[in-house]
Amino acid sequence: MNVKEAIRSRRSVKCFDPEHRLSDEELHELIEAGMLAPTSFNMQNFHFVFCTDKEVQAKLRAASWNQAQVEEASVTIVLAGDLKAYENSERYLRNAPEDVRDMFGKMIPEFYGSNPTLNRDEACRSVSFAAENMMLRAKEMGLDSCPMIGFDPAKVSEILGLDGNHPPLLMLTIGKALKPARPRMGLLSIQEVVSVNKFGNHPITGELPED
Amino acid sequence: MNVKEAIRSRRSVKCFDPEHRLSDEELHELIEAGMLAPTSFNMQNFHFVFCTDKEVQAKLRAASWNQAQVEEASVTIVLAGDLKAYENSERYLRNAPEDVRDMFGKMIPEFYGSNPTLNRDEACRSVSFAAENMMLRAKEMGLDSCPMIGFDPAKVSEILGLDGNHPPLLMLTIGKALKPARPRMGLLSIQEVVSVNKFGNHPITGELPED
Repeated sequence: MNVKEAIRSRRSVKCFDPEHRLSDEELHELIEAGMLAPTSFNMQNFHFVFCTDKEVQAKLRAASWNQAQVEEASVTIVLAGDLKAYENSERYLRNAPEDVRDMFGKMIPEFYGSNPTLNRDEACRSVSFAAENMMLRAKEMGLDSCPMIGFDPAKVSEILGLDGNHPPLLMLTIGKALKPARPRMGLLSIQEVVSVNKFGNHPITGELPED
Repeated sequence: MNVKEAIRSRRSVKCFDPEHRLSDEELHELIEAGMLAPTSFNMQNFHFVFCTDKEVQAKLRAASWNQAQVEEASVTIVLAGDLKAYENSERYLRNAPEDVRDMFGKMIPEFYGSNPTLNRDEACRSVSFAAENMMLRAKEMGLDSCPMIGFDPAKVSEILGLDGNHPPLLMLTIGKALKPARPRMGLLSIQEVVSVNKFGNHPITGELPED
């Protein structure tokens, strides 16, 4: 499946076959898709908890407004940030040229250690790049997905044993759809979302096809 | 290009042909890729400023640690959040069934209006889903990209006329590569990034191919 088709056909599906399981190879494909997403300074400031145990998924469902897809998906992935990634740059700069390693090794802790908002924003960005990759790759593999933020972060952390440096920032359910997504609720027009060269300058008009 | 290949071959490129321009059709393809990304409650809480004017790009470069790709890319896209999207749900729920529109219309402002951290996190997630779509679509179109956070948000806002409700959360340069990306600086192992069912439970081992 080409990228354009995957982007157009990816929709948030809520109804998955609870009996469907992913093979180890399929799980590996999703892991690769997530891990190859870009991160700032190559920090890889994310941690993915792949939940395939139905008991764990049932607990997560209870912590997620009782949304059925959390239990019924083939895998429920909790994407956590790694808020201390900036302290351990030697792990992810090991193959960098020495001058880059020295420079980045000083810049990274200064840049992120001094700015908690930037650090949290960065974790949100990194998990989202990774999740989008997984969603498109899932579509290509004949699967569907639903990204979710409707969960209680404290309860999810407790269920999975996440520590305070690894807040759950996104949940992603992936599985075999039993029902298609509902029609789109309303795409904004290009003019509402896109400016050119200056905020509020809208030479590009029109809407995208709704389905 | 299939999704897997796009994910594997997407790398952050820093050196673009400054003479290269995108056609209106190509810009439209990138806009579509971004706008079709998922957002929580369909809020579409993002705004994209596509900068193709070299004078604007030069100013943005000066606000971005003088990184050459900001000026030399065919387009430099500033992805801003829309922190007030939760107040205007009728825009993006217009095609929803009446009961959903009523329910979401109440939930959205309560959920986001009462939690500024969640609201900002959501904007970071939404712009990142959109940017990842654009990066993969660019790759398929024979282009390369570099996502960036090394810029002064206040200066970028001033240059583009962004208001306080639309903070710039990500910059994305897209163009024709003159030099390939540098080799990867170091991918973490699967064991470092992935747990199964419980944080710290690492039955899946191994590393991904570096290039």
